[in-house]
Amino acid sequence: MQAQSKKKTTIIGSALPHMPWEPREPGNNNVIWRSTNNPIINHDHIPSSNSIFNSAVVPYGGGFAGVFRCDSKTRQMQLHRGVSSDGINWEIENERLQFLPDPNTPTAAEINRFEYAYDPRVVWIEDRYYVTWCNGYYGPTIGVGYTYDFETFYQMENAYLPFNRNGVLFPRKINGKYAMLNRPSDNGHTPFGDIYYSESPDMTHWGRHRFVMGATGGWQSTKIGAGPIPIETTEGWLLIYHGVLTSCNGFVYSFGAALLDLERPWQVLHRPEPYLLAPQAPYERTGDVPNVAFPCAALADADTGRIAIYYGAADTAVAVAYGYVDEIIDFVKSNPA
Amino acid sequence: MQAQSKKKTTIIGSALPHMPWEPREPGNNNVIWRSTNNPIINHDHIPSSNSIFNSAVVPYGGGFAGVFRCDSKTRQMQLHRGVSSDGINWEIENERLQFLPDPNTPTAAEINRFEYAYDPRVVWIEDRYYVTWCNGYYGPTIGVGYTYDFETFYQMENAYLPFNRNGVLFPRKINGKYAMLNRPSDNGHTPFGDIYYSESPDMTHWGRHRFVMGATGGWQSTKIGAGPIPIETTEGWLLIYHGVLTSCNGFVYSFGAALLDLERPWQVLHRPEPYLLAPQAPYERTGDVPNVAFPCAALADADTGRIAIYYGAADTAVAVAYGYVDEIIDFVKSNPA
Amino acid sequence: MQAQSKKKTTIIGSALPHMPWEPREPGNNNVIWRSTNNPIINHDHIPSSNSIFNSAVVPYGGGFAGVFRCDSKTRQMQLHRGVSSDGINWEIENERLQFLPDPNTPTAAEINRFEYAYDPRVVWIEDRYYVTWCNGYYGPTIGVGYTYDFETFYQMENAYLPFNRNGVLFPRKINGKYAMLNRPSDNGHTPFGDIYYSESPDMTHWGRHRFVMGATGGWQSTKIGAGPIPIETTEGWLLIYHGVLTSCNGFVYSFGAALLDLERPWQVLHRPEPYLLAPQAPYERTGDVPNVAFPCAALADADTGRIAIYYGAADTAVAVAYGYVDEIIDFVKSNPA
Amino acid sequence: MQAQSKKKTTIIGSALPHMPWEPREPGNNNVIWRSTNNPIINHDHIPSSNSIFNSAVVPYGGGFAGVFRCDSKTRQMQLHRGVSSDGINWEIENERLQFLPDPNTPTAAEINRFEYAYDPRVVWIEDRYYVTWCNGYYGPTIGVGYTYDFETFYQMENAYLPFNRNGVLFPRKINGKYAMLNRPSDNGHTPFGDIYYSESPDMTHWGRHRFVMGATGGWQSTKIGAGPIPIETTEGWLLIYHGVLTSCNGFVYSFGAALLDLERPWQVLHRPEPYLLAPQAPYERTGDVPNVAFPCAALADADTGRIAIYYGAADTAVAVAYGYVDEIIDFVKSNPA
Amino acid sequence: MQAQSKKKTTIIGSALPHMPWEPREPGNNNVIWRSTNNPIINHDHIPSSNSIFNSAVVPYGGGFAGVFRCDSKTRQMQLHRGVSSDGINWEIENERLQFLPDPNTPTAAEINRFEYAYDPRVVWIEDRYYVTWCNGYYGPTIGVGYTYDFETFYQMENAYLPFNRNGVLFPRKINGKYAMLNRPSDNGHTPFGDIYYSESPDMTHWGRHRFVMGATGGWQSTKIGAGPIPIETTEGWLLIYHGVLTSCNGFVYSFGAALLDLERPWQVLHRPEPYLLAPQAPYERTGDVPNVAFPCAALADADTGRIAIYYGAADTAVAVAYGYVDEIIDFVKSNPA
Amino acid sequence: MQAQSKKKTTIIGSALPHMPWEPREPGNNNVIWRSTNNPIINHDHIPSSNSIFNSAVVPYGGGFAGVFRCDSKTRQMQLHRGVSSDGINWEIENERLQFLPDPNTPTAAEINRFEYAYDPRVVWIEDRYYVTWCNGYYGPTIGVGYTYDFETFYQMENAYLPFNRNGVLFPRKINGKYAMLNRPSDNGHTPFGDIYYSESPDMTHWGRHRFVMGATGGWQSTKIGAGPIPIETTEGWLLIYHGVLTSCNGFVYSFGAALLDLERPWQVLHRPEPYLLAPQAPYERTGDVPNVAFPCAALADADTGRIAIYYGAADTAVAVAYGYVDEIIDFVKSNPA
Repeated sequence: MQAQSKKKTTIIGSALPHMPWEPREPGNNNVIWRSTNNPIINHDHIPSSNSIFNSAVVPYGGGFAGVFRCDSKTRQMQLHRGVSSDGINWEIENERLQFLPDPNTPTAAEINRFEYAYDPRVVWIEDRYYVTWCNGYYGPTIGVGYTYDFETFYQMENAYLPFNRNGVLFPRKINGKYAMLNRPSDNGHTPFGDIYYSESPDMTHWGRHRFVMGATGGWQSTKIGAGPIPIETTEGWLLIYHGVLTSCNGFVYSFGAALLDLERPWQVLHRPEPYLLAPQAPYERTGDVPNVAFPCAALADADTGRIAIYYGAADTAVAVAYGYVDEIIDFVKSNPA
Repeated sequence: MQAQSKKKTTIIGSALPHMPWEPREPGNNNVIWRSTNNPIINHDHIPSSNSIFNSAVVPYGGGFAGVFRCDSKTRQMQLHRGVSSDGINWEIENERLQFLPDPNTPTAAEINRFEYAYDPRVVWIEDRYYVTWCNGYYGPTIGVGYTYDFETFYQMENAYLPFNRNGVLFPRKINGKYAMLNRPSDNGHTPFGDIYYSESPDMTHWGRHRFVMGATGGWQSTKIGAGPIPIETTEGWLLIYHGVLTSCNGFVYSFGAALLDLERPWQVLHRPEPYLLAPQAPYERTGDVPNVAFPCAALADADTGRIAIYYGAADTAVAVAYGYVDEIIDFVKSNPA
Repeated sequence: MQAQSKKKTTIIGSALPHMPWEPREPGNNNVIWRSTNNPIINHDHIPSSNSIFNSAVVPYGGGFAGVFRCDSKTRQMQLHRGVSSDGINWEIENERLQFLPDPNTPTAAEINRFEYAYDPRVVWIEDRYYVTWCNGYYGPTIGVGYTYDFETFYQMENAYLPFNRNGVLFPRKINGKYAMLNRPSDNGHTPFGDIYYSESPDMTHWGRHRFVMGATGGWQSTKIGAGPIPIETTEGWLLIYHGVLTSCNGFVYSFGAALLDLERPWQVLHRPEPYLLAPQAPYERTGDVPNVAFPCAALADADTGRIAIYYGAADTAVAVAYGYVDEIIDFVKSNPA
Repeated sequence: MQAQSKKKTTIIGSALPHMPWEPREPGNNNVIWRSTNNPIINHDHIPSSNSIFNSAVVPYGGGFAGVFRCDSKTRQMQLHRGVSSDGINWEIENERLQFLPDPNTPTAAEINRFEYAYDPRVVWIEDRYYVTWCNGYYGPTIGVGYTYDFETFYQMENAYLPFNRNGVLFPRKINGKYAMLNRPSDNGHTPFGDIYYSESPDMTHWGRHRFVMGATGGWQSTKIGAGPIPIETTEGWLLIYHGVLTSCNGFVYSFGAALLDLERPWQVLHRPEPYLLAPQAPYERTGDVPNVAFPCAALADADTGRIAIYYGAADTAVAVAYGYVDEIIDFVKSNPA
Repeated sequence: MQAQSKKKTTIIGSALPHMPWEPREPGNNNVIWRSTNNPIINHDHIPSSNSIFNSAVVPYGGGFAGVFRCDSKTRQMQLHRGVSSDGINWEIENERLQFLPDPNTPTAAEINRFEYAYDPRVVWIEDRYYVTWCNGYYGPTIGVGYTYDFETFYQMENAYLPFNRNGVLFPRKINGKYAMLNRPSDNGHTPFGDIYYSESPDMTHWGRHRFVMGATGGWQSTKIGAGPIPIETTEGWLLIYHGVLTSCNGFVYSFGAALLDLERPWQVLHRPEPYLLAPQAPYERTGDVPNVAFPCAALADADTGRIAIYYGAADTAVAVAYGYVDEIIDFVKSNPA
Repeated sequence: MQAQSKKKTTIIGSALPHMPWEPREPGNNNVIWRSTNNPIINHDHIPSSNSIFNSAVVPYGGGFAGVFRCDSKTRQMQLHRGVSSDGINWEIENERLQFLPDPNTPTAAEINRFEYAYDPRVVWIEDRYYVTWCNGYYGPTIGVGYTYDFETFYQMENAYLPFNRNGVLFPRKINGKYAMLNRPSDNGHTPFGDIYYSESPDMTHWGRHRFVMGATGGWQSTKIGAGPIPIETTEGWLLIYHGVLTSCNGFVYSFGAALLDLERPWQVLHRPEPYLLAPQAPYERTGDVPNVAFPCAALADADTGRIAIYYGAADTAVAVAYGYVDEIIDFVKSNPA
């Protein structure tokens, strides 16, 4: 492990000096480490919720904004919006977020109905914050919407046919096209799943689908899926992704990292065998779904290389882990499969 | 939420001033709340037990009596009898309860053998306490028996053919017939299950079977089953029932409530979408079967409207939750699906 | 094998000299033999049908009447009535049979709706022809109805809760009760199934359920179910029943026979290991469901001991096999398991 | 049924006087009838083939051309091209068809590799013959290509992410976009499947996905999928599609028809309950996969209304059925579900 | 294809001029061809049998002897002995073969009980005919026995632990050890299966287990298993083996061939992709298990290179296919995967 | 329960006065009791590990040595060696143990490759420490190796064909042969499994396989498997074994004990119904696989009868339980099934 403070990093992006941070504790020699405040958002953070997890946050204004998965007390999966000044203490709206039909998508009203919504991701591209999520439309597929202000949200067309989950946009166009990672699946607790790449000229029509990487073995032997928005670095896109192992008592979700080619992101440059974090803390081991650590967002500071990974814990609460992007990249490059 | 003490209630029944009770804590705005003594009965409450859960209690004498599911250290499922002066501290017999053949049922001796017995319910009808349970007879079906004194128990004919579970008698005849809710199932960890209604002129022959309500979505998407003996109120029968959601790590048991028509109980008057209680306490999340809250009995005081719901926690221990019947009825009526 | 003509038989019943018959061909040494006219009813016997099979016939008037399973060209399972002068050439109504609510069952109208109906059996008891069938009511259960004239049919209450199939009435009361064999099942292509016995004082309420016999091995290793109405003989009730073997290409339905105690029919007196008939004729091997021979009715002549077994072939057509009841009983008694 | 010859039809299209034809035989009162030459192409029609079925034909030159599914003696699924002067007698190339990368699709070479290919459809749009098929690319998806001459074939991008099957193009742009029916599926013998509609401005990027219709009951209770290219008529798009029923011995494939709105084809105007044709002929009942009738193409003559439906029989051979489009439309409109 | 008569062959073995033979018919260009007498043994060849298939024959005396799988009319799987002068017309004993405990195996009596027995192979090694079969001993494993005269049979120890099937001995010791191919499986209709090699110094203890080859794709994508005794040739051991493909209607059994190294038989020298024979004849397509061709024995004449392969058809009857070993070897070597 | 200290025991073996020990606490009346230091080895005991569990220890030198299952942070299953002076505090090597090919097994090099290795057992026989483990070789089978010094380890041939787990050697030859208990399984999370016995003259070839005992009911209803090396006593071999129950949330692993005949160990002398220990401690209930207690080793002192059972807890950590062999034997003999 490298020294814990660093000035020059490989991140291609902006400074984010006010992002949440806790230094690695002495004696801890893991690549990333858990916040001592975990879980930062508990299952009953708002009155209407059964559980809050698998959520997405971004810098917004001088603070932060987010889209949260809040399962209700009917166990309906829905999205809620929230804001925070420090990224740790969040005000989450008690009512679910409702999308308006995008006025620029003539056919948007046809699918602007709510069935269920979960596992959001949020990213700034060009002029607005795009939201993608797992959207119920005769099966799970990738919903696409946007907001300028985290108050009003617009829904465009679904990106794909069912059945798809874990649609994660790249934070800029690649080769002139919007680009999204995603995971074709089926209509249940899918026992398989690989990461694919798709392009779009207009955020409505998607094509040029490419296989990126698949389930392999160990902690990622059943299926994998993209996590936070990929982080652009001089070494490639840093992709943090979850992997699933099937024990005799069900699925275990851990997460790891890989580097993708900047201009041809379906080409994997480095993919280590070990995970970054496996569910071992009490709040990851016990909850509505035991043994789950599922990342959906990351904040990164280009000046220091610090990163804060937001992940769902046990399908019940939101937790944070910290690390240095450069150390993670070293880890990715030095543990070849 | 309403104020916490009330004099006039909708319960059609008797006063039970000595029933267990703890007031709702300030700041708690849930419809029902857990006892601070939970679990009131631990898995090793008696020397012979592996676990004690899913049990039935009734007022008896000046105190309480009950039939308990005590799985032995062979993991055999069996019923034990117990008594208590306060409904919280229980003396449970270390040996399993053995039924004698009912002398009034000529053929009772033919089936009076023990294979396994679990998930009892107990109810006073007319002149005695009837017990129903899941009885092993070439598959799980509903055993029926009775006792006058919680010392001697008599076994009648099984109510139904296999495969059935969660047989719950109504506390009085309806339209001149004994009436029972039940759930047809299969011979394993059944992945489906709806609540039905059946009638009997004689507690031996059952017919006029009616569908009452089925699994829907969310916390009750896989199957549902009746819990405690229905509570008669001026608004209808108050049915507390469990629902099951299938996560990628198995079944999750929560419980909710509904109102059934007093004279045509297969007609559902109100059924809200949210649950009353989901497994979120440590003793509900962790145990022999994680994430289970399974109610089998309730004590209610017609004078105050207080209710104490007894439920199995994690298939391991017995827990209690408190509430007011009137508030539960308000909840049932004000959260339409 | 015995000589093929015989005067005194063990059948307790009536003469039926005009029943269909073909003698055993020389060189054939099987207990029962197929009609040379098979299949006697083809899949397109009536314009509306996709297939006609698993049907029930009885003597009626000077000829015969029946209730037929005719799956429509939507593949809806339904019952049609039919008549025949010789038991081989049948006039089957092109429209499905519709039951009226039994005027003597006050609640009959509540369930008098059509979901699906299949695998009928018909029997004369006391003063009318009772029909039982697999009736769709939130899952398959046993529908019960009757007719006096095969023109008007009345529907009573369903005998059981779902899930049940192959409900077969005995042709007289036993110990003062109506008696029915049946097979508890689940809600799909059930991979298990045993034969049970139930009693009723009134054809509405059923109880005193008894296990009769279960799946064993070989041709009857997956499940079994009663076939035609049991034939009363001096040796006991002759039960012809189907058994299912699961090959790597699906279920194979054969049929065999057993003898049940006359007054305690849940006690099996004799049950041989071999089958009577396995699907080996072309019309049994090929069809909508390959490799099925499924008996639902039998005609028997007490004077000669002749029997004609009607069975569905490949879920597509109706076939007949002939034999002598006495020879079948010899076979049942001389091939112990 | 109407008279069998007719001059004025509802087909919006061209005359095709030389298409194959056989009149309905007297006494046959089915909507469509089988060719007496069936199967017109046998499983060993070419030396390299194990089976030839589920194939697509179109008018070409003064005769016909086609793309055939020929499974090899390794049981590899592949496409072969063929020509015929009469539509019945086919010369099929013994070697499989190989696509060149489309020179107008810059990225086409990246996916121009052969894994497997099956169930083709062919349609003329604007200036060329487009071919779609089930293409192996890390799972089954819809391959898209074209030819001008049935000699050279070019492959474009796959239309969708895996897992998809039965991609069927409309024969003209709708609302200015290419339009395709398709069926999202999973990676095995998918036990579910509905028909969806997708649009594309460029045959590369697809979006605006709409649910069209799903599995219902009976013969189409497990899954459904589009068959031949929809036929444009004054009554709407005539869609012939297959439906699957799951018996205890596996899948049974039949086919039926529906009418879709001309300009909003995801809106179903009429969908009858009965099938058009179920597998009942010997060559449909017996073969590599028993009980399959799977249509992939149709020839239609706008002058007479005649239609010839080409379908795979038992996953083994190619068969043809004839009918009149107007009679089929009458059937579709007069048998509401 | 080569000319059909040939004198010098690559077979290392004896002449067998009286083996069954039919020349390839003109126009047939397959590597092997079916006997025109197929099936040579029908399902009802002996009175006690439901079906006769998957059987093993060897030259014996001046004619032939064999061990046959005859499933009884209880569908019990058992072995019967038989003799023939021409290899086509067989006298099969009506009673099942019963093994005596091998007097030279002290512990043989402990396991000398009959549960079930199927799929035999027979081979001459050194001084006797060894028989191996799938033997029921708390699950399927490989039974081992021998006979000198096809009248008295002795049973030794089972070769392996359950679960194993398709144990096929080599016809001579290899490197001083007895050698057996076999297929580890599970306790049902195993959906996987590869061929392994094991050695024994004494026919009782087995070890040095080696993986030989596994399921790949197409016709052999689910599992594979050794068929007849391997034929020693100058090119290596010629192994004929079955392969299974899983269609949506179940398993399809075809067979192919491979060449194994003479002294290290776990090393595969050549393995072509295509099959030799797939179930396409009516008696292979239809029967107790549709679409099965399962070879268990082969006769070969070293002088002419002729081979006769005996295989079970549809788990119902015995069929024969003919070919030339040299042509098969050419086929094996010229169709690399 | 007997008094807790005792001098004369039934153990046939050596004194081990320095073995770990804690007396039974007052009030605890269980046969065995947990160490207050549990878990004695945590999941992160060495930097490379994700979890350490299911491990084997033996007396070595003046202290103890062991082979540990350490799953890495890739979730690869591997073996590590360790030493300890007191049996509680362990120094475990951070790198996985690598076997050399046994120089006395000519063919050992052929299989000396690493795929995965787990669940080791260690036993002293004659002149060395033998190690058996679940070894990946085209599926799980039993690897066999040895060491003299716990520094260099040699690998011999695998004992069996796949699929096998829980290979446990007896600590001496029986009837002149090496003897091993084992459990045939399949290639996944096997839902069945019984204990078998096999013999070998040379540790390479194994035969004379015998069924010992199978899954029954309750805590051992799904499968069972041998745990520590059997302990020789005057009452027979004391076998501690795990049993699995399948709840609706997955497998639950408990452990119990039985007595096997000394010279015919496949004969079970006593097998009680209750378990010895079920997963009820927090570290057994929560972890990578909840509800697992899986014993792999035991230390016993012949002078005092003390025993320390080492078991994996929740597939995450190593725990110890203590007891007296004589009390366990009493328990085994006094709780007949």
